[in-house]
Amino acid sequence: MSRDGTNFTSDNVTGVSPAILAALVGANEGRVPSYGADPLTAALEARARAVFETDELVLFPVATGTAANALALAALVPPYRALLCHESAHIMTDECGAPEFYSGGAKLIGLPGAGGKLRPERIAAAIAAAAEGGVHGAQPVAVSLTQATEAGTLYRPEEVAAIAELAGTHGLRLHMDGARIANAVASLGCSPAEATWKAGVDVLSLGATKNGAMAAEAVVFFDRRLADGFAERRKRAGHLFSKQRFLSAQLLAYLEDGLWLANAAHANRLAGRLGAGLARLPGCRLAHPVEANEVFAVLPDAAIEALLAQGFRFYRWPAEGGGTAIRLVTAFSSDDADIDAFLAAAARHTEAVAAGQAA
Amino acid sequence: MSRDGTNFTSDNVTGVSPAILAALVGANEGRVPSYGADPLTAALEARARAVFETDELVLFPVATGTAANALALAALVPPYRALLCHESAHIMTDECGAPEFYSGGAKLIGLPGAGGKLRPERIAAAIAAAAEGGVHGAQPVAVSLTQATEAGTLYRPEEVAAIAELAGTHGLRLHMDGARIANAVASLGCSPAEATWKAGVDVLSLGATKNGAMAAEAVVFFDRRLADGFAERRKRAGHLFSKQRFLSAQLLAYLEDGLWLANAAHANRLAGRLGAGLARLPGCRLAHPVEANEVFAVLPDAAIEALLAQGFRFYRWPAEGGGTAIRLVTAFSSDDADIDAFLAAAARHTEAVAAGQAA
Amino acid sequence: MSRDGTNFTSDNVTGVSPAILAALVGANEGRVPSYGADPLTAALEARARAVFETDELVLFPVATGTAANALALAALVPPYRALLCHESAHIMTDECGAPEFYSGGAKLIGLPGAGGKLRPERIAAAIAAAAEGGVHGAQPVAVSLTQATEAGTLYRPEEVAAIAELAGTHGLRLHMDGARIANAVASLGCSPAEATWKAGVDVLSLGATKNGAMAAEAVVFFDRRLADGFAERRKRAGHLFSKQRFLSAQLLAYLEDGLWLANAAHANRLAGRLGAGLARLPGCRLAHPVEANEVFAVLPDAAIEALLAQGFRFYRWPAEGGGTAIRLVTAFSSDDADIDAFLAAAARHTEAVAAGQAA
Amino acid sequence: MSRDGTNFTSDNVTGVSPAILAALVGANEGRVPSYGADPLTAALEARARAVFETDELVLFPVATGTAANALALAALVPPYRALLCHESAHIMTDECGAPEFYSGGAKLIGLPGAGGKLRPERIAAAIAAAAEGGVHGAQPVAVSLTQATEAGTLYRPEEVAAIAELAGTHGLRLHMDGARIANAVASLGCSPAEATWKAGVDVLSLGATKNGAMAAEAVVFFDRRLADGFAERRKRAGHLFSKQRFLSAQLLAYLEDGLWLANAAHANRLAGRLGAGLARLPGCRLAHPVEANEVFAVLPDAAIEALLAQGFRFYRWPAEGGGTAIRLVTAFSSDDADIDAFLAAAARHTEAVAAGQAA
Repeated sequence: MSRDGTNFTSDNVTGVSPAILAALVGANEGRVPSYGADPLTAALEARARAVFETDELVLFPVATGTAANALALAALVPPYRALLCHESAHIMTDECGAPEFYSGGAKLIGLPGAGGKLRPERIAAAIAAAAEGGVHGAQPVAVSLTQATEAGTLYRPEEVAAIAELAGTHGLRLHMDGARIANAVASLGCSPAEATWKAGVDVLSLGATKNGAMAAEAVVFFDRRLADGFAERRKRAGHLFSKQRFLSAQLLAYLEDGLWLANAAHANRLAGRLGAGLARLPGCRLAHPVEANEVFAVLPDAAIEALLAQGFRFYRWPAEGGGTAIRLVTAFSSDDADIDAFLAAAARHTEAVAAGQAA
Repeated sequence: MSRDGTNFTSDNVTGVSPAILAALVGANEGRVPSYGADPLTAALEARARAVFETDELVLFPVATGTAANALALAALVPPYRALLCHESAHIMTDECGAPEFYSGGAKLIGLPGAGGKLRPERIAAAIAAAAEGGVHGAQPVAVSLTQATEAGTLYRPEEVAAIAELAGTHGLRLHMDGARIANAVASLGCSPAEATWKAGVDVLSLGATKNGAMAAEAVVFFDRRLADGFAERRKRAGHLFSKQRFLSAQLLAYLEDGLWLANAAHANRLAGRLGAGLARLPGCRLAHPVEANEVFAVLPDAAIEALLAQGFRFYRWPAEGGGTAIRLVTAFSSDDADIDAFLAAAARHTEAVAAGQAA
Repeated sequence: MSRDGTNFTSDNVTGVSPAILAALVGANEGRVPSYGADPLTAALEARARAVFETDELVLFPVATGTAANALALAALVPPYRALLCHESAHIMTDECGAPEFYSGGAKLIGLPGAGGKLRPERIAAAIAAAAEGGVHGAQPVAVSLTQATEAGTLYRPEEVAAIAELAGTHGLRLHMDGARIANAVASLGCSPAEATWKAGVDVLSLGATKNGAMAAEAVVFFDRRLADGFAERRKRAGHLFSKQRFLSAQLLAYLEDGLWLANAAHANRLAGRLGAGLARLPGCRLAHPVEANEVFAVLPDAAIEALLAQGFRFYRWPAEGGGTAIRLVTAFSSDDADIDAFLAAAARHTEAVAAGQAA
Repeated sequence: MSRDGTNFTSDNVTGVSPAILAALVGANEGRVPSYGADPLTAALEARARAVFETDELVLFPVATGTAANALALAALVPPYRALLCHESAHIMTDECGAPEFYSGGAKLIGLPGAGGKLRPERIAAAIAAAAEGGVHGAQPVAVSLTQATEAGTLYRPEEVAAIAELAGTHGLRLHMDGARIANAVASLGCSPAEATWKAGVDVLSLGATKNGAMAAEAVVFFDRRLADGFAERRKRAGHLFSKQRFLSAQLLAYLEDGLWLANAAHANRLAGRLGAGLARLPGCRLAHPVEANEVFAVLPDAAIEALLAQGFRFYRWPAEGGGTAIRLVTAFSSDDADIDAFLAAAARHTEAVAAGQAA
């Protein structure tokens, strides 16, 4: 299925993992109660509790990551309060104001941080600054971390825990945007529980679409009291599917037999190869360590142009500290040949540039 | 696939029409641009223009009817104005305030009307009453019709046109909630264009899920100026799918080769048989004429209880003018045997009741 | 100050009660902390606790009744739930969707009821109907009563208590729109506490503007846990005044020395005279009993026209059960001469009509 | 009235300018139509057209600056788009999310800029960055400038014009938060028209409260097409006053006989004296030039503590480039003795510090 392996723009240009497609076909049997009262949804929740090792978990399938994030944040942040997140977070820059819409106008406060990561000191400073404002400022009541980050880096469980502890001290809840949580868990080598609730995460946006589903994500509450009213929020947002079995079937297949982690590990391995290969080329360096399935590399401009002209597709990305990197995303459906082809082309172009410069 | 043919609760308990499932499987090929820049989405729009006979049409796929309705209405009604609809409309009673959420708090004004239908006089009266209120009232700027209605009845094209003309006179736009528009078109024997924009409809929520799709609807604008900003509304609502090809594939299969109308005509025919059969039974009558795929019938209570006890599933529904009806919904996946079985059981139970009463 | 005593359109066409104007002038001394941290605001809260006989009370001054109502309701009703009120309630018909705006799109469900009054049976039926809808319906979590009602009638404390008890049984909170609460208390002869929290009211919109203030109302919480976040809601709505002393000064003067009840009793007495006088005229009847400061009277059309032609000003109002009444509102600044003049004119015109009809 | 001249925390701790208080008392005559249909409101609009030299102007009185700003911005920015402003702007940091609330969740994008001022290059960069995001980013449609800025500095008319021209090129509208516009106009020596619409401002929040009113501001549209729907927005926000004559009376007195500019010039002159005096003291410097009625000065910590201990009141403020300044605000009701007293105390404390340090 990995036709068009030259497209590294995103993991969302891929199709559906075969096991998930098979599950969809298999779910098309007979009549079942609508709106989530079906057996597949029940099986999914049981499966998620096993995977995350907690019966406290409640889970709501939705179809998009924007919906998962915006609904989760609306459950945490009243309209008149604020959320802290990284200034480059997807919720801040790429969802056209979805969190503001869903929360009724809550304020997102973006904080800087190297490598796409929030750090406790900045969070503490932001809380203190808002407190100065009293009723005039919007007081933060939650923090959102992106795992893996927008820079393709990871929070270690102990880094999450340090943020969670600080947040808890000030009464803030912790959300994790896990659009690529599978890549993070697979890379960190910890358990899903250790990566999330054991480190203090209250609510997780569990991504699946980028890693093999057709269109399926889940809002996972580790503290079920936070889910009060959530079913109604989802309904009125148009994210309660009448034929919910087809969402649940995707997620169930995703979490079964380790598919989610296998898919992610595969993509991570290829990204690792790609990053290591690029780092060795003349005039190239990695903008961030490759810790999941994204590579951010700084290449000579002429080499970038040559790669694009050759038909490879990828986005340019502002590099921290200035300059421009390219972002290359691998996926469950990428293969070694795709990586080999890109590296060979990049080698050729960067060497040509180096030769030209030397001349 | 029509296992469990005893479930008449809704057309949303069904699975997926085989041709649509095949289209989904077929769409799973290679990497394509995300967020709607894929070939299937382009093909879908072209197909919709052909089906509705207008190149003015623009179309936005979404996954649920609630999303389609709420997004469409938000495009028509600013937060400080109002929408007129039937007091029993789905948008009024069954979407947990989705139109209020999406519009930013616009007011829905529910109007009575026999047979689930709005009539021009009531609309005119409501416009006049609001005008009295000036800046204190919320002035209506749109009307929403449900086709087929919540009572399973239909607006003739000329009835729609009369409402559209009145609306236009006062500067109101016309929305049609077409969750069951296919059943309406199939029953009316008019063209899709005649049922919609030629009769004055500005925006249509084109339903597909109840009639064979997995999860796919479309917001169809017949006046593209109304779509300004719509792409952003959809995005921030979390209803822009990254892998949109899988929404478009469903809708494309649905509109191709007349599948939508064939599925609907089949369900309509079975509902007609069911209604006619029930109307002949002792102590039974139809609460509304059967014009699409829903039957509203008043039966003796004891017969209803006996049918439920026997395993048939359906909802009770308040009957116009008092009393309780039962609602029976047929679908593309229903078959004649389902109808025969229900009618036989209903005959047995109503005759037992009649005999008991006579005794 | 009662110039232009021919204007009976509303109690909001009046100016400011002299004691309140004096208080405003007196408050203009020196520099005091802004945003409510001033001595007058503290004195006002103490005064309100004494007047309502409870130290549990917390109070937030605002400038308009719409703000008081919308903010109070937003504190009670989350965006995805509903509020029950009379179908003629000001919040339903005359605030341009303010409750929908402030609550983030909560649903207002208007219920019928004779004399402008809600009754427990209708409330119970509405709760039951919504419960049927489950997650698809918007579940009511609060009831709002208007006291005095839009028909100029009153709820007795025991009527309020019956509604509060029913509401409490189902977990609903009770709001009272007290734009004319002073008229109600003055007329009922009960204490302010008996009219409100002792009867089960959780939050009161305490009106003052119609009854002598320049622009001052207060949101009064009798259960302070409900006020959580309210200060921030008020701020972000632009209803936190920097020079709040000038709001508090008005309300303090209003509640001191019984001014609020004296002003209201005066207006009530005049309305009583006006209503009794009209009821005696040929072809006239009262649409509702006159229980506060509003008179709803049905007069012959020709007499209404003659009164308007003569320069009297008032609104026509749909009468319950059909037909049109006129609404006449008295105020703290009305006087007996105003009433005498209107009654004399009405007598002349209705007698002329009667004579003409008899001829 | 300038008792408590030791309070330099804000210009909103002051009372009411005598001429404005007299106007309020004078407005308390008889019955007049409510909700703005009164003669004073008509006179105010006429007066504003004369002051701003344009008949295109339409004006809406409200009571607070937060309301003026949030309503004005909601008229310019749809929920799914964005607004550019300085990162320190009041609308960004001090209104508890009011613009987000009123706009239905539009995004505020805060930009840095020395001296509290936005510059065209940063605006251009922000527009370009958002455009990259396409439908995923929130596209800016308006710019808001604060005049005088939060740093007490001013935009020259030509600076405003440069920003307006850039904004217009990209289809963005220009809002001016004029909470202290009088101080700006008085200081710049230009006409009100030159400071606003002639420089390209589309909508002005015209402040009066800080400069002598009790509670009165106005939203001033210089392009009346932008005011479509504004009356309804104001109503549903609870900012339409029933007794609007009392808002209009304040604003009318404010704009008549040059009171607004005289009050502002007085405050500006005192701030100038205060700033110049502080700048001469040992260890002191101004963080920003004093161009209106605010002084931002960096003083030795020990001197600040001593001034506070002595009873002077003011806020500490983060100084650009690090460190902490103090903010001192003068007002129409400040007098030279207040300034003399502060300067004398500051001289004493800073000299003591200097002596100690030298020792």
